[in-house]
Amino acid sequence: MRVFITDTTLRKGMQSASLELTYEKRKELFFLLSSTGIHELEVGVPAHSEEERDYIKYLARSQHGDKVIVWNRANIRDVEASLECSVKKLEIAIPVSDFMIKEKLNKDRDYIVRLLKEIIPYVKSKKLYLSVGFEDVSRADREFVIKLLECIREEGADRVRLSDTVGVLNPLQTNELVKTASSFLDVEVHFHNDFGMATANSITAFLSGAKYINASLLGLGERCGITPLEEVVFYLQLIQGVHTGINVKRLYEIVNYFIDMTNIHLAPNKPLIGKNAFTNKSSIHIDGLTKSKRTYLPFDPEVVGSKAALAFGLYSEKANKLCKK
Amino acid sequence: MRVFITDTTLRKGMQSASLELTYEKRKELFFLLSSTGIHELEVGVPAHSEEERDYIKYLARSQHGDKVIVWNRANIRDVEASLECSVKKLEIAIPVSDFMIKEKLNKDRDYIVRLLKEIIPYVKSKKLYLSVGFEDVSRADREFVIKLLECIREEGADRVRLSDTVGVLNPLQTNELVKTASSFLDVEVHFHNDFGMATANSITAFLSGAKYINASLLGLGERCGITPLEEVVFYLQLIQGVHTGINVKRLYEIVNYFIDMTNIHLAPNKPLIGKNAFTNKSSIHIDGLTKSKRTYLPFDPEVVGSKAALAFGLYSEKANKLCKK
Repeated sequence: MRVFITDTTLRKGMQSASLELTYEKRKELFFLLSSTGIHELEVGVPAHSEEERDYIKYLARSQHGDKVIVWNRANIRDVEASLECSVKKLEIAIPVSDFMIKEKLNKDRDYIVRLLKEIIPYVKSKKLYLSVGFEDVSRADREFVIKLLECIREEGADRVRLSDTVGVLNPLQTNELVKTASSFLDVEVHFHNDFGMATANSITAFLSGAKYINASLLGLGERCGITPLEEVVFYLQLIQGVHTGINVKRLYEIVNYFIDMTNIHLAPNKPLIGKNAFTNKSSIHIDGLTKSKRTYLPFDPEVVGSKAALAFGLYSEKANKLCKK
Repeated sequence: MRVFITDTTLRKGMQSASLELTYEKRKELFFLLSSTGIHELEVGVPAHSEEERDYIKYLARSQHGDKVIVWNRANIRDVEASLECSVKKLEIAIPVSDFMIKEKLNKDRDYIVRLLKEIIPYVKSKKLYLSVGFEDVSRADREFVIKLLECIREEGADRVRLSDTVGVLNPLQTNELVKTASSFLDVEVHFHNDFGMATANSITAFLSGAKYINASLLGLGERCGITPLEEVVFYLQLIQGVHTGINVKRLYEIVNYFIDMTNIHLAPNKPLIGKNAFTNKSSIHIDGLTKSKRTYLPFDPEVVGSKAALAFGLYSEKANKLCKK
């Protein structure tokens, strides 16, 4: 079993209120991430500006150019800006909930269908790989989603991206939605973390048939961000034994380098990366750890180049005693 | 449908490497949390020390004394220390994975069964409410878990606590495990966050039949912590429309007060609580938000006394324009 990880640190990550990176840093990060063996990188929005297109052209022509995918609104102008960059893969996003269609676009369902029927054949006529992103699919009418899945498959889209735009999906809903969608075409998932469920929804999606998981370093993105790349990769590889094609030790180094590069603030208990991620404190845990690391750790942190630690305080007489030895 | 939230900030939270609270602060927090309408608070470990017992006695005699539950290892000495505190509810924890039974206790499965058959009737003879915690249930043999569920039901335990001690369970496994366990007796879940899946596993557990969710403020606990109280409560109440008995606005105030009290470090994108939790930055999101708050927010943050915000940077010309107006 194989899963493909698609990184969006360079696009969605830039929407984090805490992060701004220069184009030079974005290029550096592109090559660092490529070196982990990651499948694909969503690097930006060609329609955004001339400068953005120059940067994308540079990446598209590089040795890892075939990993580049770019983001577009569902309109011909955006697609043309992408074509100008000579990329091989396109992502097109379109709102699919009635709420978004009405409140944001002031349109109706028929408009969405017409737009897709116009734009998909256009992209495919250019011999590009196309992922169609269903924005706000979690709040969308299920029958309409099925109608759209049929439509985009018929028009020749290569995959669908299910976006939980405001992070309200729970894993059982994810399971159902992904099972349905993957009976139509390849599924990618993009989950927001407004309630802290993005990683679990991504893992559930994979177990329910999704082939692609979209994520970003440390989960950076709008508001509470999205699925943290390192969490899904480490879980899939170290716990589920699923092949992601990514070198976890290299990824761990890059995450840590990225933290230094950006000076980003992390909680000490951030999974895998926070300074306390592998630190146990209670006597009972410490007692167990002296017998075997695996008692109170999900895996040996040395696998990724980190190490287990002990902390001291209330409930940790055992640690205190050990230290006095 | 009703769910019961059991807080363990005052016990498990104390095992966070980043936190130490005095007994005075723990008392203050007990009354603050009680005032939200929370069902139960796991306040400490009576066997730990004389000082710990004095503090627990004080809480047990207070007006919210019926919300108090205390943690014990599965041995008579621990239970006697709890009895001394005049509490009405007990939690007893016992390892159930072969790995823990062997590596930590150097015992076998029969020993676990014998211990439970000795201790449960003893506790029940004292007319106490008893929750039996299955430590490391996620790595345990399923048939043995079923045998133990039968055993503790027969001996009169009031509920079982399923503990994902090293945070390796995924939501589909949670779904299966909780469905099985809740066919035997009331289920409580206690999930660690080593891969960032504690909240989603807790929500899944509830949807699969669990009646009790154990959590702590900001998810404080050993290593990466456990299920964050505010995440499960807000999701259940604001998105699922499930009654938790908790006043979410009051809870939000208390979480913020707790952050000030402890000076704890949070990531800016911490769900619900981080300074960017309700901050959108990209033009497309900001454009949507000017039409309706719900386009790019899971709920109106004013419900909990917070508010939506905008940030500026790459991809946010729209925000810049709005500000110039």
